[in-house]
Amino acid sequence: MSTEPPPASAAAEELAAVIASSTELPTLSKKQLRKSARKAERAAAAEQQKMHPPAPVAEDPFVANYGDVPVEETQSKAVTARSWTEVADLDAAAAAVGRSVLVRGFAQDICSLGSMAFVVVRQGRSSAQCVLAANAGAGVSKQMVAFAKSLTKESVVDVEVVVAFPKEPVVSTTQQVEIQVRKIYCINRAIATLPFNLEDAARSEAEYEKPKFREFLWSKDFDEIHTPKLLGGASEGGAAVFKLMYNGQSACLAQSPQLHKQMAIIGGCRRVFEVGPVFRAETSRTHRHLCEFTGLDVEMEIKEHYFEVCDVIDDLFVSIFKHLAEKCKEELETINRQYSFEPLKEAGTEMEPMGDLNTEAEKKLGRLVKEKYGTDFFILHRYPLAVRPFYSMPCYDNPAYSNSFDVFLRGEEIISGAQRIHVPGMLAKRAKECGIDASTMSAYIESFSLGAPPHGGFGAGLERVVMLLCALDNVRMVSMFPRDPHRLSP
Amino acid sequence: MSTEPPPASAAAEELAAVIASSTELPTLSKKQLRKSARKAERAAAAEQQKMHPPAPVAEDPFVANYGDVPVEETQSKAVTARSWTEVADLDAAAAAVGRSVLVRGFAQDICSLGSMAFVVVRQGRSSAQCVLAANAGAGVSKQMVAFAKSLTKESVVDVEVVVAFPKEPVVSTTQQVEIQVRKIYCINRAIATLPFNLEDAARSEAEYEKPKFREFLWSKDFDEIHTPKLLGGASEGGAAVFKLMYNGQSACLAQSPQLHKQMAIIGGCRRVFEVGPVFRAETSRTHRHLCEFTGLDVEMEIKEHYFEVCDVIDDLFVSIFKHLAEKCKEELETINRQYSFEPLKEAGTEMEPMGDLNTEAEKKLGRLVKEKYGTDFFILHRYPLAVRPFYSMPCYDNPAYSNSFDVFLRGEEIISGAQRIHVPGMLAKRAKECGIDASTMSAYIESFSLGAPPHGGFGAGLERVVMLLCALDNVRMVSMFPRDPHRLSP
Repeated sequence: MSTEPPPASAAAEELAAVIASSTELPTLSKKQLRKSARKAERAAAAEQQKMHPPAPVAEDPFVANYGDVPVEETQSKAVTARSWTEVADLDAAAAAVGRSVLVRGFAQDICSLGSMAFVVVRQGRSSAQCVLAANAGAGVSKQMVAFAKSLTKESVVDVEVVVAFPKEPVVSTTQQVEIQVRKIYCINRAIATLPFNLEDAARSEAEYEKPKFREFLWSKDFDEIHTPKLLGGASEGGAAVFKLMYNGQSACLAQSPQLHKQMAIIGGCRRVFEVGPVFRAETSRTHRHLCEFTGLDVEMEIKEHYFEVCDVIDDLFVSIFKHLAEKCKEELETINRQYSFEPLKEAGTEMEPMGDLNTEAEKKLGRLVKEKYGTDFFILHRYPLAVRPFYSMPCYDNPAYSNSFDVFLRGEEIISGAQRIHVPGMLAKRAKECGIDASTMSAYIESFSLGAPPHGGFGAGLERVVMLLCALDNVRMVSMFPRDPHRLSP
Repeated sequence: MSTEPPPASAAAEELAAVIASSTELPTLSKKQLRKSARKAERAAAAEQQKMHPPAPVAEDPFVANYGDVPVEETQSKAVTARSWTEVADLDAAAAAVGRSVLVRGFAQDICSLGSMAFVVVRQGRSSAQCVLAANAGAGVSKQMVAFAKSLTKESVVDVEVVVAFPKEPVVSTTQQVEIQVRKIYCINRAIATLPFNLEDAARSEAEYEKPKFREFLWSKDFDEIHTPKLLGGASEGGAAVFKLMYNGQSACLAQSPQLHKQMAIIGGCRRVFEVGPVFRAETSRTHRHLCEFTGLDVEMEIKEHYFEVCDVIDDLFVSIFKHLAEKCKEELETINRQYSFEPLKEAGTEMEPMGDLNTEAEKKLGRLVKEKYGTDFFILHRYPLAVRPFYSMPCYDNPAYSNSFDVFLRGEEIISGAQRIHVPGMLAKRAKECGIDASTMSAYIESFSLGAPPHGGFGAGLERVVMLLCALDNVRMVSMFPRDPHRLSP
């Protein structure tokens, strides 16, 4: 039976292997750098092995086997060794193995038949029917069956199940197995009355031409999407926005695909990416900002920790750099003849800053990291919540920090990423704290009431990546038709 | 020695094999359909075998071997059997063969040494030095050498050459061979004073991450580009445009990458494509229009005829349909369960209409073509010039028609394409005739003075392709977040 790679993958281990212990940056004290969150996380991971904490139901010996999972447990608290199984892999082969497996999915349908409960769990186009019947020998209480019956459609659930050959053919799901639930936890509860039933609607239409491209991301099960650039409200609070009139309504140009790529995840796309234009109404000229650039945006469900996103970045960029070195040798040599640069030093380290960095601090940090660790490519994480967008997930152990990270190439930031808030109440609260009028993005916030799995992602500006890869000193040099505050033509 | 496929390829032959001889469409008379341009083109092709017509230089027995080619000769007059060689293939192997080959490229450098002329011909990053010395035995006159010396830098030239091993190492070009010119024709003359010299500037920067995607187009030597969506002027005259303010200047959203993809060709990119958002301020709701959609745009140098573009479309879409049928079987079946549709009938026919078609006429034509030829995918060409954009190349034999075509899928247009005007004077004249103020697009028009090869291309709306492929009846069904005149959110 195939399973997903364990979340605490080799790459994450490697990524976490080195903690910076000495720098002279004003914003990074030695003490602060030394204080690693890893220790706390490992302790939490041990705790986590006992599965999620119990819901407060009285008089039930099996109370630990079910319940609603508190939000804190989904804030990248720990990277455990738990192994996750895909719904598509719940088949005869899994039944033959006979041991219990762990699955996360949407509760597509819940129904009760006498003392039994049935929950159809869906991932993408795969679905499987899970059965709960009170059985003291299997650790399933009447209360647990009642809990399953209480689930709302499209809630995100974790189930620990045993797969068996079905006694009769299963007609309503894609997977032809009978699944006995041993444990069931609700990760994020959808509202009881959804705008429409899945059965009544077409499934997500995304893009059907997959012209065999974006091979790395395809190989990791990402789907390419195209999200709208014309929006009714600003996509992010912070950056300057281009406004225009749209058939009598006021509209603006997307400053990122952020909100829509998250909605694609809520819609069940699981892992998505987009390559497209990003618009920022910058007013000052710098060497690394453009008013329009080509963004690479990625969003994905996460099981436990935002390090799962970092692992994808690590693999993706190593794959890109390797491909460029092999396949674009001639092009790189052409640039190198005109603007000489050193090849990249190998990647792989991690730090933990306590404040945001300005360009000068970034460059200085880059030099120090290169000196000490011999790498041009590294990831910083756990930024203060206050310096990140409102939709960033706070750290489980200290809400002054966020489950966020930046990726640096030759000492400059090329990627920003984070775990996102998947709980509508917390999201509305954070929007308000950041001075954002939640009513301007109600469609976005409300979408998290319809069944939203924990997720994270990142965005990169491709011109900036190319600029730094080739050690050029101005982003205009890597754009065919650059757009800056003074340049709109040709 | 590898050469490009001959322009009159099997696909073009096949494409041209069938001429519709009977329909009842009001806009297509039997007589008109019968009157095929093929006959005229074949006659022209025979003529063309004698190479380009002579320039009017007196007293020279070799006058036919050089000269400026009249524009008419570059208006897709004929598909000949001539075979073209890449500059990159002018190597020792070519020298060993010893016979003359035909090459088109930019005249990167021209210099004279006594009675000899040297012309460096460039394609992409490959360049070769061509030598002309008066030699009656080789058909090279003094006047011909003088003609070569008179060329301006970055003019597009056709040369018939014999490749030889060099007596001394060649230092200034990529190709290590000595090239004797037998014939030389100027296809499009660049202005004498270019804005800057190639040697002084960085070469075109395009995009350096080629993540192994868009495999078909990559395999045909296309480069992916990203052109700006924020423009100083409207990109096309016709369609409605979104306007906005850009740091105090008035700007608009690109209605297509048309002008910029053409400029990429002039810049030496040879073959480019883009997948990105296209903005149209439509005000009426139809089943097949959106205010924002995902466009696939392609532009390429052509050697002789816009059928070279049709060949790429033919191969590209057959490859996409094949891939979808093989790799996306499950997805297509999912749609088919909800919205039943018939698989596509095989492609490959050609017609010649005399007027533009409305949606109803298109559908009717589609039914007739399917009945008669059993295909859901066909190309119509030679539209009247008046119904095509100002930059469309007029037909060489009748300027009331254009070197343009539309591609139909299940009876609806999915692609528009054409040969483009590559001569600045003709372009400015056509803009004026179409009521366009040339001063609003002077950068575009002037770029054709800097060395512009004959070229053509096409644009497709991907949502519409998916809609028709799946025989759905509304384009909103294939867009995750559709944008129409009344819909701007979420």
